[in-house]
Amino acid sequence: MNSVQQVPDLSRLSSRIPAAPSIGSTTVSQPNHIHLSFGFAADSLFPLEALEQSALQAIRQDGTRALQYSGAPGPRCILDWIQRRAASHGIQAGTAQILVTNGATQGIALAAQLLLEPGDEVWVEAPTFFSALQAFRLCGASIQAFPIDGDGVQVDELEQALIGAIREGRALPKLFYTMPVYHNPGGVTLSLRRRQQLADLARKYNFYIVEDDAYAELNFTGQTYTTLYELAPERTIYLNTFSKIIAPGIRLGWMIAHPLLVSRLRILMLGSSTAVFTQEIVAHLLDQLDFEQHREQLIRHYRSQRDSMVAAIRSELGAQVSFELPEGGFFLWLTFPDTVNTAEMQPIAEQHGVSYVAGSHFYHDHSGHNHLRLCFSYCTEERLVEGISRLAAAYREYQEEQLHQGADIPMRY
Amino acid sequence: MNSVQQVPDLSRLSSRIPAAPSIGSTTVSQPNHIHLSFGFAADSLFPLEALEQSALQAIRQDGTRALQYSGAPGPRCILDWIQRRAASHGIQAGTAQILVTNGATQGIALAAQLLLEPGDEVWVEAPTFFSALQAFRLCGASIQAFPIDGDGVQVDELEQALIGAIREGRALPKLFYTMPVYHNPGGVTLSLRRRQQLADLARKYNFYIVEDDAYAELNFTGQTYTTLYELAPERTIYLNTFSKIIAPGIRLGWMIAHPLLVSRLRILMLGSSTAVFTQEIVAHLLDQLDFEQHREQLIRHYRSQRDSMVAAIRSELGAQVSFELPEGGFFLWLTFPDTVNTAEMQPIAEQHGVSYVAGSHFYHDHSGHNHLRLCFSYCTEERLVEGISRLAAAYREYQEEQLHQGADIPMRY
Repeated sequence: MNSVQQVPDLSRLSSRIPAAPSIGSTTVSQPNHIHLSFGFAADSLFPLEALEQSALQAIRQDGTRALQYSGAPGPRCILDWIQRRAASHGIQAGTAQILVTNGATQGIALAAQLLLEPGDEVWVEAPTFFSALQAFRLCGASIQAFPIDGDGVQVDELEQALIGAIREGRALPKLFYTMPVYHNPGGVTLSLRRRQQLADLARKYNFYIVEDDAYAELNFTGQTYTTLYELAPERTIYLNTFSKIIAPGIRLGWMIAHPLLVSRLRILMLGSSTAVFTQEIVAHLLDQLDFEQHREQLIRHYRSQRDSMVAAIRSELGAQVSFELPEGGFFLWLTFPDTVNTAEMQPIAEQHGVSYVAGSHFYHDHSGHNHLRLCFSYCTEERLVEGISRLAAAYREYQEEQLHQGADIPMRY
Repeated sequence: MNSVQQVPDLSRLSSRIPAAPSIGSTTVSQPNHIHLSFGFAADSLFPLEALEQSALQAIRQDGTRALQYSGAPGPRCILDWIQRRAASHGIQAGTAQILVTNGATQGIALAAQLLLEPGDEVWVEAPTFFSALQAFRLCGASIQAFPIDGDGVQVDELEQALIGAIREGRALPKLFYTMPVYHNPGGVTLSLRRRQQLADLARKYNFYIVEDDAYAELNFTGQTYTTLYELAPERTIYLNTFSKIIAPGIRLGWMIAHPLLVSRLRILMLGSSTAVFTQEIVAHLLDQLDFEQHREQLIRHYRSQRDSMVAAIRSELGAQVSFELPEGGFFLWLTFPDTVNTAEMQPIAEQHGVSYVAGSHFYHDHSGHNHLRLCFSYCTEERLVEGISRLAAAYREYQEEQLHQGADIPMRY
């Protein structure tokens, strides 16, 4: 053959692959830069000593089995722990209803693959988690979004859309994706009334709820909520993760669903188990960790972090922004005046040494220009406060530039 | 709502989900049973002591970073190691061309998702790896298979089918999946002439080759082969794994492809990294392991295992079966007379205390009734020999039953 092409023929790829990642990785690497952008966990609370012991135990006690395809007792211990923990949240599930995944994100991807054909309707919250949007795009879904307020997603609007779709003969959603507590990025929590209403709608209109409960254990108030899974177990695929309660790098999450769905999800995993060696280590860790004590430590830490960030925002940005106070989780969702474009403000913020995620990443139609997400989980409180101070300075500079541009181009409109 | 359904509505699932796993897990659990069925690695050769040290180093030296989402230096070290190792096999690839996956099986699934739309043509070898068949079914592919012989897949037949498809206006394949060395299950290796021919066909007929090189390092003869990747780098997605050279339970594999393809594959992974904590541990392991020495140990072990199994087959089953002598890998592929149905023989074999994988699992159309796969990697040599003796006894009993049935039901035909 003479006509050797050295570039692959991209026209042969699946048409459903987006050309760009759901969110660009930050390229800022100055040592003093303050990253309020990504949802990293607080590394000072990683249970490193217990992990050391656990790794040794996993290798010494049962290494030959632990390192085989299906592992030793670890995967079973993890299932038992998840089952007990879920029960403490009101979810009654046998171990045949639990599937361990590569983080909660793989759970979203598997739920999407389980349910979706190209062209299917997926309904989400606006804003919503960008990787979930990407997972639905990858399945060729048609996405529709419903606004959130202080009580979570506006389920009345969802109901109106369902009624409208029926009336006009349009397709109903196959799944509704929601993060009902400590929403990423919104920080809000779905009210009990709306939960009940959503569960009823799922039954009436025959769709599945994908309940992403990734931040469930990081509850700052003690106020607990009935899960959607509990309200409609046959309609709900429940997702959670060890990323926020142990460490993200172990990349272990889990799904809970009806056994008939879990058996299909296993088929999607092609008979492959998730990280069995890591499961062995985490099984030993969970066996020796006082989880309630560890969780209280996490909550104290993250609540204090939230309070520091909130105080700094009130002091530095005051009435110029609005937000809901998160009852848990990692994130604050700031709303600026409608004239502000947070994506345009971003380079200025980076010059000031602070980064955030612009609101548009959380909307399937890239709207949300006047919002941004801040993460209070990762930096020290001192750095959080400094970061907000930098953000406020960047905002002032951005406003001045806007005024200046308006003065330069008076004939613009 | 009164009409609570307690069972999920499976009619809402994607129509592409197969109802059954690609292969049933063995239910045999008698302590003395000899499993010649699954491709487990030899656990006596897992580098346990080095892993212990590596786990401690990963946690102690850099634990806070190692356990964050993106890890510490580990993922980078792994890429560098893979790059060097690939170069030693003639594959020149920058680290932007390498993607670490959850085993080679995830690599197959990702390649399938990257390329396939429902209805697309995927061409494979007959027989082929059952999880690959399942991955293609999950993408809604239309599968066509081409027979192997002692020199690997019969590329002439593939070419005739391509010419026929062009002539008749039928769809050409999007991808051809092949395991060119130490084929699973066939044990055969693709000749250099056929490799060149296959690479030329991929260019001429515009399809991608998915080259599954999972057993590449377990080369019993020293005879090496030019990879398909080397022959057609812009047309090949190359897969490999640490499962056979370190341990399966770490669940780490890798893909090598053009950077434009790898960037799309990363999108399919939704920005999530594979098992960064495990990558940290394996990075330390690779740093201290004398890989060449370790590999020679593996080769000596598996070659000796193969020889024991082959000797036992020749002695116990003699002229009743035929097989190609594998130059590497884990598997022997036995062909019985056409009257034998290995799936029907399986319960008898299990009563005799031995298990294998029936040939039909390796064919997209469930043909291959007179073949079976044996794995020589896992059991001790003594058990391998005993296993073959049990298989021969089961075969004799099966033949007697066949005769008996024939005598009982003379009017059957």
